[in-house]
Amino acid sequence: MTQMPDANLLESLRQRLGPKGFSGAPEDLSPWLTDWRGRITGKAAALLSPSSVEEVQAIVALASQAGVALVPQGGNSSMVAGATPPVDGSALLLSLRRMRAIRSLSGDDNVAVAEAGVILSDLHVAAEKIGRRFPLSLAAKGTATIGGLVSTNAGGTQVLRFGTMRSLVLGIEAVLPSGERFDGLSALRKDNRGYDLRQLLVGAEGTLGVVTAASLRLFPSAGSRAVAWVGLADPQDALTLLRRLEAATGESIESFEIVSQDALDLVLRHISGTRAPLGDRHRWHLLIEATAPEGAADPAETLTIALHEAVEAGLIEDATIAANETQAQSFWKLREDISEAERLDGGSAKHDVSVAVSAMPRFLDEGAQAVEQRFPGARVLAFGHLGDGNIHFNVRPPVGLDDKAWLASEGTGVSSFVHDLVGEAGGSLSAEHGIGQLKLADFARTIDPVRLAALRAIKQAIDPKGIMNPGKLIPPA
Amino acid sequence: MTQMPDANLLESLRQRLGPKGFSGAPEDLSPWLTDWRGRITGKAAALLSPSSVEEVQAIVALASQAGVALVPQGGNSSMVAGATPPVDGSALLLSLRRMRAIRSLSGDDNVAVAEAGVILSDLHVAAEKIGRRFPLSLAAKGTATIGGLVSTNAGGTQVLRFGTMRSLVLGIEAVLPSGERFDGLSALRKDNRGYDLRQLLVGAEGTLGVVTAASLRLFPSAGSRAVAWVGLADPQDALTLLRRLEAATGESIESFEIVSQDALDLVLRHISGTRAPLGDRHRWHLLIEATAPEGAADPAETLTIALHEAVEAGLIEDATIAANETQAQSFWKLREDISEAERLDGGSAKHDVSVAVSAMPRFLDEGAQAVEQRFPGARVLAFGHLGDGNIHFNVRPPVGLDDKAWLASEGTGVSSFVHDLVGEAGGSLSAEHGIGQLKLADFARTIDPVRLAALRAIKQAIDPKGIMNPGKLIPPA
Repeated sequence: MTQMPDANLLESLRQRLGPKGFSGAPEDLSPWLTDWRGRITGKAAALLSPSSVEEVQAIVALASQAGVALVPQGGNSSMVAGATPPVDGSALLLSLRRMRAIRSLSGDDNVAVAEAGVILSDLHVAAEKIGRRFPLSLAAKGTATIGGLVSTNAGGTQVLRFGTMRSLVLGIEAVLPSGERFDGLSALRKDNRGYDLRQLLVGAEGTLGVVTAASLRLFPSAGSRAVAWVGLADPQDALTLLRRLEAATGESIESFEIVSQDALDLVLRHISGTRAPLGDRHRWHLLIEATAPEGAADPAETLTIALHEAVEAGLIEDATIAANETQAQSFWKLREDISEAERLDGGSAKHDVSVAVSAMPRFLDEGAQAVEQRFPGARVLAFGHLGDGNIHFNVRPPVGLDDKAWLASEGTGVSSFVHDLVGEAGGSLSAEHGIGQLKLADFARTIDPVRLAALRAIKQAIDPKGIMNPGKLIPPA
Repeated sequence: MTQMPDANLLESLRQRLGPKGFSGAPEDLSPWLTDWRGRITGKAAALLSPSSVEEVQAIVALASQAGVALVPQGGNSSMVAGATPPVDGSALLLSLRRMRAIRSLSGDDNVAVAEAGVILSDLHVAAEKIGRRFPLSLAAKGTATIGGLVSTNAGGTQVLRFGTMRSLVLGIEAVLPSGERFDGLSALRKDNRGYDLRQLLVGAEGTLGVVTAASLRLFPSAGSRAVAWVGLADPQDALTLLRRLEAATGESIESFEIVSQDALDLVLRHISGTRAPLGDRHRWHLLIEATAPEGAADPAETLTIALHEAVEAGLIEDATIAANETQAQSFWKLREDISEAERLDGGSAKHDVSVAVSAMPRFLDEGAQAVEQRFPGARVLAFGHLGDGNIHFNVRPPVGLDDKAWLASEGTGVSSFVHDLVGEAGGSLSAEHGIGQLKLADFARTIDPVRLAALRAIKQAIDPKGIMNPGKLIPPA
């Protein structure tokens, strides 16, 4: 058990951090106490905003000495309330947002060293200035920070080709629960000196220490991109198409997103200025992006030929390629605005699940049937990263019922049911969002005891006082 | 401290494993007691050869109960004596070589599930049969096993494009020191349920448990490949060339190896049937391989044009592209036989070091100078994975001295000196070979205490009795 922060601790922190780094004012704190999805509002006696790794070390050392918990926070865009403090006010909020330096950018080494508070879209812009790209992107890119993206092993729309954050992290600097600095920033491409502590910190949700900076892989800027929209009847055919496109384009496919007709309808209804890319309705739609580096052939031609052949062969029903960048962006807008359209329509019970890539078509069919049978009238809305086997498998209230009331009474049961289905299919109840607070109960209910024991042993070994982001990720004993 | 194995334990193991799984006969044991490089000969009362994960569990449970240590072993091709038992006979040898099933191979999911004892080249062949490749290769591919490759986070000649074993492992099954089975085999592309125990087991050198199987990423078979040999004066120009080739060929460069003229001379002198690919002598040589998937354009043409331009621009001195597969193999033979040629010439103090990719050209120059100044007459022989910043930076005895005597008296000092140079350059004293026994002293001398404390805490948390591969990787207190 951690201690409540007392006046002595707060005063020491205030003195150490100064007015820019310490605030106890409710108006400074309140924007950061409620999670992104508005599900949980926590409480904290102070907002700590260090501007350097030394200040983070000082904070952690003082907190450790006092046995007081810390909740690290970046852009506060966690989908699972992973950066929201506990409601009892026992923890202090540790914001990394002032640590926003890009310490270095090298085109020779293809490495960027970014501090935890750097916003993802700022890194994108900086990399492009030297002819490089950082190929991880997601809807919250204008808010999400590098520290949070590392700590949640973020995914997004380019995982198919570039992997999750885990694949893009070469080095990490972190302050461990002792207050000591772990200097693992060195961006060596190969380094076999013992357990990979960097990989342990990726996806640890701040429970093993505070990530203060990361060395990240860069790639040559894309010279050209081709964005296609496809209509088809069967997700199984979509996977066949994916394998053909990968072979035809030399592995240049980086996004392969699926959107149900229902999801598309929702966007067309609620988001102004949107229109359907294809004339007819189709059971499923695909958004496909291929890129090629500067100097290499534009992938549009190869993609056009391959999609034409797929229509001829009856594998897909229709396809179109964006004629220009504006149209490409309008295709992406249809995909990216699904969550917003869903919210405007009344909300849903959200699930971020994965199964083996080849098992997803069957899961989409049978999972939806099972949910709609168990919860009559409920409507499954599925969309996401088919190429990774990761779908946002959301469940909307029955038509005509009060959305909020239904979600309040049925939401937990629906989610447990969906997570059990995923478990039976050998999948994960958290593909990319993490566990945080919102998935902790279902995680605790379903985790293999051998794995649970190992997680707890590691947590205990690295953070024996339990001061780092308590109540997240690790099911309590 | 672990216990010596007693007669009761050996009898229990003999009964549990049967005659194929248990042997105490010296003739069965002796081939496996000396490390690959012939540096250390250990001792063990029994060779345990389980054929299933259940048998591995039974072995570990019995050993744990008795407090007796186990040394997991695959192909016994460790470069650092990582699978050689201690000389005091306190540990039992646990061979995974009978667990050689490829449990599944899926072209749809691009995943192979291979047991620990599967030999790398057997996996290559199996994958090619379904039109896929497993893109990790190294000289010991006919001996090295999947379990060992996972446990050492093996590298090889295709890391530039596909990463080390860590990037290729999707799932792991392991028996933990408790005897319990960790089932992390599920090859989900995305799974954010807590600390990544799989990544913790990769490169753990068997000190946290016994890897019994792994799910591995597959890629489309290469449809065509182009292999070039280049002569040039300056490694710095080699890196400039690499970035140009990557841009021109759409990231299809997968090997970018550097060979000094000295190393080439050694091969030409000692290995029969070899000849130099280029007419003139050059300070440095490069072996470059580009591949393209089936259906995509042969990379030879693009590579030819790019190399021609590089000669015109004075970036490189000469280049040739292998005209056929036989010639391509003869180029590769020059690279792969360097170690053998070195051995035939009298041996060397071997180092497997990495620095930042962009820092390697300078390290090659200044490092060699420093060594040759400190150890007059000693000759640096450098070759390896320039594209990864990883060089085998070996030091040969002065001409005219007794090789073995010089290595015996100076070898340790030379290695410490080289490792210190690497440390000053921000690099790693083990890029791909691991720590094992042979690098343990220098690792202990140079490791950051914060990192050391974390390694020990994790080891203690997962293997509190210290029965898993003692004396390797983790510096003793």
